[in-house]
Amino acid sequence: MALKFLTQRIAQTIDEELFSSSGGFSVDQLMELAGLSVAQAITRVYDNSKYPRALICCGPGNNGGDGLVAARHLFHFGYKPNIYYPKPTKKELYERLVIQCQNLKIPITAELSDSTFNDNDLIIDAIFGFSFSGEVRQPFDQVIRRLKGTKLPIVSVDIPSAWDVEKGNIDNRGFTPSMLISLTAPKLCAKHFNGKHFLGGRFVPPELERKFELNLPSYPGTDQVVDITNAPNEKL
Amino acid sequence: MALKFLTQRIAQTIDEELFSSSGGFSVDQLMELAGLSVAQAITRVYDNSKYPRALICCGPGNNGGDGLVAARHLFHFGYKPNIYYPKPTKKELYERLVIQCQNLKIPITAELSDSTFNDNDLIIDAIFGFSFSGEVRQPFDQVIRRLKGTKLPIVSVDIPSAWDVEKGNIDNRGFTPSMLISLTAPKLCAKHFNGKHFLGGRFVPPELERKFELNLPSYPGTDQVVDITNAPNEKL
Repeated sequence: MALKFLTQRIAQTIDEELFSSSGGFSVDQLMELAGLSVAQAITRVYDNSKYPRALICCGPGNNGGDGLVAARHLFHFGYKPNIYYPKPTKKELYERLVIQCQNLKIPITAELSDSTFNDNDLIIDAIFGFSFSGEVRQPFDQVIRRLKGTKLPIVSVDIPSAWDVEKGNIDNRGFTPSMLISLTAPKLCAKHFNGKHFLGGRFVPPELERKFELNLPSYPGTDQVVDITNAPNEKL
Repeated sequence: MALKFLTQRIAQTIDEELFSSSGGFSVDQLMELAGLSVAQAITRVYDNSKYPRALICCGPGNNGGDGLVAARHLFHFGYKPNIYYPKPTKKELYERLVIQCQNLKIPITAELSDSTFNDNDLIIDAIFGFSFSGEVRQPFDQVIRRLKGTKLPIVSVDIPSAWDVEKGNIDNRGFTPSMLISLTAPKLCAKHFNGKHFLGGRFVPPELERKFELNLPSYPGTDQVVDITNAPNEKL
């Protein structure tokens, strides 16, 4: 059975079910597991000996929160993370995630100078996730332009930012990352992506998986991620 | 530098710092990482092909919460967990952890019959943690008696339940587990333990580690646990 690629609406419905009173998960919990899976997947492709400095670009929503968690785990995995976080979310959880990074002395900036951007070996794009739609607003439009122009490898979290969640990189608005980490299940836009592709989210109850016919692959060992680069799917 | 073994008071102080406004962690977050580390350590010693059925005995506090999280991850790692949880904690977090296990169809019972107990391949003792002191009250006194009598392997979370946190198994009140997973740092009682010993808690900021001179070992790869069975320490 082929892995299912989700529409934006189905992705939102699954998210709501996980966080509903019957799903029982808190954002704290699943963001922790999501961020951990992102950091784990990065170690599989970009070794910290060759790619020590990782710039994590964090957006204003859950995708940015996943990025803040990933930055912390990357630190513990031996990387030197830097965080660009221009629009800090005014929620207790996000404020705590920032404190946790500050306690590790991870530099956090709201301004992206040439040197801040270029003095890295790897970029993690945690700007927009599956709930993105419409236009990219300031200051993220400038960041997307930089990402389009960089030669550094880019790892996108859940979807490549500025891509349409279902249709992909329409009108060439976004960039093509070298690696994508889909969370819970890949979104339709990932059918247009041909690079290294990992799946994170080893917490989906089998009943939920069956209900939405996700046909998730098996995760190996105790890994929080699985390589789905060559997983059978109905590519376009 | 030898790994530090903590007094009860220092363990409590470190815990308070992690969860303080300057530490920034929530119980949700660190319980998730603690439970994940417990499940991961178990896979290293008790393979799910030989030890599929794991009875997780959960106490009324944080140690029990770690057990509930571990049960969920053990399920995702291919085990068949059963939960004994006689005194459910009336807090939102714990109620959600129970729902998450129920959604995986993990049996949860408040009664421990002979068959419920014996029809397992492995016992996880998540009854009491580092804040335990005094007498073991009902119904946990009966459980401790069962654990003293069983021939099944027992894995203890943080401390072997009923042991004095600093002095160990005084007056032979408790049992000797086959494996111990210390969280954050081992407690003094672990100096009296000679079985398989793992450490979980890959989230301690270096500054906190230095302040309390923990001398933590390095965690390998992206593991959430490290084997400290043969780590240098000042054994009694």
